[in-house]
Amino acid sequence: MSLDTAAQSPSGKPHERLADFLAEDMEAVNSLIRERMASRHAPRIPEVTAHLVEAGGKRLRPMLTLAAARLCGYGGTHHVHLAAAVEFIHTATLLHDDVVDESERRRGRPTANLLWDNKSSVLVGDYLFARSFQLMVEVGSLRVLDILSSASATIAEGEVLQLTAAQDLRTDEDIYLQVVRGKTAALFAAATESGAEAAGADEAVVRALATYGDALGISFQIVDDLLDYGSTAEVIGKNVGDDFRERKLTLPVIKAVASADAEERAFWVRTIEKGNQQEGDLEQAMAILRRHNALEATRADALAWSARAKEALAPLPAHPLRDMLIDLADYVVARIN
Amino acid sequence: MSLDTAAQSPSGKPHERLADFLAEDMEAVNSLIRERMASRHAPRIPEVTAHLVEAGGKRLRPMLTLAAARLCGYGGTHHVHLAAAVEFIHTATLLHDDVVDESERRRGRPTANLLWDNKSSVLVGDYLFARSFQLMVEVGSLRVLDILSSASATIAEGEVLQLTAAQDLRTDEDIYLQVVRGKTAALFAAATESGAEAAGADEAVVRALATYGDALGISFQIVDDLLDYGSTAEVIGKNVGDDFRERKLTLPVIKAVASADAEERAFWVRTIEKGNQQEGDLEQAMAILRRHNALEATRADALAWSARAKEALAPLPAHPLRDMLIDLADYVVARIN
Repeated sequence: MSLDTAAQSPSGKPHERLADFLAEDMEAVNSLIRERMASRHAPRIPEVTAHLVEAGGKRLRPMLTLAAARLCGYGGTHHVHLAAAVEFIHTATLLHDDVVDESERRRGRPTANLLWDNKSSVLVGDYLFARSFQLMVEVGSLRVLDILSSASATIAEGEVLQLTAAQDLRTDEDIYLQVVRGKTAALFAAATESGAEAAGADEAVVRALATYGDALGISFQIVDDLLDYGSTAEVIGKNVGDDFRERKLTLPVIKAVASADAEERAFWVRTIEKGNQQEGDLEQAMAILRRHNALEATRADALAWSARAKEALAPLPAHPLRDMLIDLADYVVARIN
Repeated sequence: MSLDTAAQSPSGKPHERLADFLAEDMEAVNSLIRERMASRHAPRIPEVTAHLVEAGGKRLRPMLTLAAARLCGYGGTHHVHLAAAVEFIHTATLLHDDVVDESERRRGRPTANLLWDNKSSVLVGDYLFARSFQLMVEVGSLRVLDILSSASATIAEGEVLQLTAAQDLRTDEDIYLQVVRGKTAALFAAATESGAEAAGADEAVVRALATYGDALGISFQIVDDLLDYGSTAEVIGKNVGDDFRERKLTLPVIKAVASADAEERAFWVRTIEKGNQQEGDLEQAMAILRRHNALEATRADALAWSARAKEALAPLPAHPLRDMLIDLADYVVARIN
């Protein structure tokens, strides 16, 4: 999920402008993360956590929390705890994902499960998850705890669903959306919603920011899945066909399967369900996707979710952060525009 | 951690009497567990959870929560939610432990990681952990959330510590105690403490029940570790020497290492740290343990923790549940008495 390869606006990329605007808050978040990833007894915990946390991720999720709180006029410090909690949940899921996917690289570095072992990744992830709830408890809002524990359940449920749905041709767009919410959108939505909630914003504003986070996350993930097939614009910087080779059923193929004839269906059964792939199959997959306009339709979905994200913020009062979040929703789809 | 192989009192084993006394509450807990382990989208989640939850564990931890709440005169229903949350945390840690230890059997059945895969065990564990926090949020007490999120952090920290400490001869009794708290005592203590807290008990009573759970859990685990070396009473029903063969540094060996001469130390370095074990090594280990009275000293520690558990409950008003919990503390050490 790289945001670095797209076009740049004159005044910097939106996430960089967010980082500038929220620099002081983010410094406080980073201090708190360093403080809370420590362990009195088990040095392995900060070692593994630091490897991932300090690898230079963009901290997009904690920034969304901070932005939502500040946009709602928040003047306290609870949003810093919440942002650190959101980043801990994200880090815990990355550690567990890399075990589940047997990944070897993350953010350009060897994964923790490779450098240490699966055991450390599982248990340090559990530790960070528990620490994130301790941070939330300090915020003292049951509503915020409800938002983030529900998001955590959706994340895990989406990941389990992906285990069984990814290679099953019965997977439809509804199931895909559940998986995408688990992978990306649930934590985006919880990040913005909890920030607004901590700020004591009106229910309508809280809902607007939750809708924004959800739609932004879905758009983000659809773009990622589209770029895996090279996108319509032939954007550079991705290995085309990874998802196909790994037999991951994503939106373009789901759309093509929905209108497949018998021969095409047999092709998807062989390549995705049975995993019996031959030379030239990716080219044939691309040809089928083009035949059904599946890439164009996927692109339209990504743009629609990005538009929905922007619309959600439209009723909010003018604020530099509101504009940056709107720009961010444009930026997410800039790679396919 | 079997409670079944020890002496039986005339009126039944204490945990069976607890189960009888709390039968109605436990039925409500079991219903809630079945309800909350469901997943609208991912059937793999209830499959994996049911495999473990319905394998006939004794539900000792949720019973401790129910007992503590009822003992404090609680008449509401929140303790049922808490007990289910405690059992979900326990189930999540078992799923992750079996991945970490590459276990193949649990409660007499093949483990979930063997029947399904490591991925399912990791992700379903994450789901149950998130669901446990949702249950706690419904209880609506930040203090209870604090108790259980702190216990969850201690559990994960203890497990990470064990990864590095188990084969390191510098591991002393303090570190052993931290590991034991992570493995067993932290959740026992959180179970009783949160039950009392949910009942709105006085701070002194809450502390007493927390101390009881902690001491009971430590006693429980020391007995387990002692029986691995056959105990002084030659109790039947355990494979003697498993911990030694798996190079796990437990209390008997820690005590023997503390007073080892050069030759004994070389023996422990070779067998535990380097794992270079030969025929006859277990017998030699037993001889060294006897020479230093390490098994007797370990047994004395287990009895002292059991006594501490009972003393904690002494100031509480008379109640059948108080007496059953006291009997339970006796019962835990009955196997070594």
